[in-house]
Amino acid sequence: MTLDEIESPALLLDHEKLERNCARMRSHVHSRGAVLRPHVKTAKCVEVTRIALDAEEGPITVSTLREAEYFFDHGFRDILYAVGMAPAKVERAAGLVKRGARVAAIVDSVEAAASVARGAGKAGVTLPTLIEIDSDGHRAGVRPGDPRLLEVAQALGKSLRGVMTHAGDSYNCRATDDIRKVAAREREAVVACAQALRSAGHDCSVVSVGSTPTATFADSFAGVTEVRTGVYMFHDLVMAGLGVCELGDIAISVLATVIGHQRDKNWILTDAGWMALSRDRGTASQWVDQGYGVVCDAAGEPIADLIVTESNQEHGIVARRDGGAIDFERFPVGSRLRVLPNHACATAAQHGEYKVLRGGKVTDTWERFGGW
Amino acid sequence: MTLDEIESPALLLDHEKLERNCARMRSHVHSRGAVLRPHVKTAKCVEVTRIALDAEEGPITVSTLREAEYFFDHGFRDILYAVGMAPAKVERAAGLVKRGARVAAIVDSVEAAASVARGAGKAGVTLPTLIEIDSDGHRAGVRPGDPRLLEVAQALGKSLRGVMTHAGDSYNCRATDDIRKVAAREREAVVACAQALRSAGHDCSVVSVGSTPTATFADSFAGVTEVRTGVYMFHDLVMAGLGVCELGDIAISVLATVIGHQRDKNWILTDAGWMALSRDRGTASQWVDQGYGVVCDAAGEPIADLIVTESNQEHGIVARRDGGAIDFERFPVGSRLRVLPNHACATAAQHGEYKVLRGGKVTDTWERFGGW
Repeated sequence: MTLDEIESPALLLDHEKLERNCARMRSHVHSRGAVLRPHVKTAKCVEVTRIALDAEEGPITVSTLREAEYFFDHGFRDILYAVGMAPAKVERAAGLVKRGARVAAIVDSVEAAASVARGAGKAGVTLPTLIEIDSDGHRAGVRPGDPRLLEVAQALGKSLRGVMTHAGDSYNCRATDDIRKVAAREREAVVACAQALRSAGHDCSVVSVGSTPTATFADSFAGVTEVRTGVYMFHDLVMAGLGVCELGDIAISVLATVIGHQRDKNWILTDAGWMALSRDRGTASQWVDQGYGVVCDAAGEPIADLIVTESNQEHGIVARRDGGAIDFERFPVGSRLRVLPNHACATAAQHGEYKVLRGGKVTDTWERFGGW
Repeated sequence: MTLDEIESPALLLDHEKLERNCARMRSHVHSRGAVLRPHVKTAKCVEVTRIALDAEEGPITVSTLREAEYFFDHGFRDILYAVGMAPAKVERAAGLVKRGARVAAIVDSVEAAASVARGAGKAGVTLPTLIEIDSDGHRAGVRPGDPRLLEVAQALGKSLRGVMTHAGDSYNCRATDDIRKVAAREREAVVACAQALRSAGHDCSVVSVGSTPTATFADSFAGVTEVRTGVYMFHDLVMAGLGVCELGDIAISVLATVIGHQRDKNWILTDAGWMALSRDRGTASQWVDQGYGVVCDAAGEPIADLIVTESNQEHGIVARRDGGAIDFERFPVGSRLRVLPNHACATAAQHGEYKVLRGGKVTDTWERFGGW
């Protein structure tokens, strides 16, 4: 099918860019001696994940137990659930272990560790668990040097497998040199904690790091066993703003149709509002604020200075960044545009499927799922 | 089921508040002599819409043709599709007319009007159409006094049924007096255009206005035949910030579980991130910025000063507005919280179902749908 034959709004996925992004990260991580454990929370799609991996069974990272179950049902076996385990979710995770999954959990407190050990024991399984390390103060985890590390390890007992961290602060960097520093700190924090655990006699076979910016710019993965990253498969405007990718690497876009002109305001109205684009404004704090997304022609080429400046539920307002005159004859009512997203995870989450483009034609529809 | 028995995150819907909000708006609009045409884009749920209406078949307002088809399949017949009609969508709308729906479209340009008349004619039906009027400059429509009004009417020919407007600018008001002014302007704009059309010999039996703030504070609906509004069924923090409702009127909330403490930062981590709350930050420009939502206890009572200050995909960071000390013993790992949303439409859109609460117990699960 051609793009003209599908309805808008729709989430388009450029197969060639997806393959290129995946191959690049795989080669980058493997050449530095680590294992790539892709995060499937961005794509939530089996076909995309198969392209990201060398192997059929994983390893993968998930952000919900629903993702863990869905991917397990599609043949994936080695799964890290990378959100602090809630006591009430241990039983569900243990259920997956009983079905043959190699599911691992994460915790950052004695309370959570004790509830994992207790809940898994009650279910008659061991739930391998990593201790989350806080390498940059942006969210969760135990700080390097905090004596609670060993207390959590103690509470985990035989469930302990290692340590993990996520340098989410890398998203706030303003220069690639800063990302390199965050990446170094990420690695050092988790390697130091691994050493502390080993010195105290604990098993720490897994040392896991990850975020797309730090994975891309890390100079070294020495002491690290695996790298988790998800956004790189698609990339987005936040990554482009960080210098992690070029605009031309962004593999997803939202197909929109022009539904009106506001000539006195120099606005084009489209049918792709925040329901299709998401409310994410990740570039608002970057050097270049891309509004609700960069506007491209139907072939996917960015149109100089056009962005989605405002969005309602099912309306997008397209204007020039400088508010300048628009050549409305170029964008008649009914014509098609494409919008590059601020944040791939958030925009993709607004859609139930990908329309897969190969050579400019829609050749496949791939399901994505949501929920918990 | 009790709240303890359901998994988090989940979208909770308080049945009593829903009924009260719906009864209040119905009585408000009816007592002023207009018809209420609820907008189903907020709830996207048949059960909720039945509570909002007196009648089985409508009238309802929709923002997508998917909504039109879904509600038609559930017995609704009188449907206004209130987004400017794209030429490529006329055939699909005409398909609904052929199946017996009374679907109406809106347009604000000669091009769109001509494509509606042409497309419907080709399909062998008439697609009743309203001309969208721009009453506040915030989005789409023909301005009152613009000679294009009559050109659009001409292009519509026998499809023309009337005029409609949406005073979206009411969301940006800072005081209820301003909302009253926006409401008066909304009514005057559309009534003036209706008169202009009738003076030129056109049919203009429908005069439609709507937004939750203006519907709530309008002093008069004189000359108006119907009022469209959707958020009022649930209400949200933006509406509370506008003085349209009280916090206690907000009928939906997101159930969250505490997954960690960051004691040195005075943060509580929960499992309800933006995937459950949405990225909407509608209160950011109001007098009180509510972050990603107001935090309540498990019974739904707001906890003084606690809001979701930051969110990642599956993590919410809860802190006091002033960054002050938190009594962590009150919120142990595993305990439950509820979060009131900035924007009901956006938060509900992140979920596939409502867990319906009656008397504090979950008595039903109601489906909601998405897509286009």
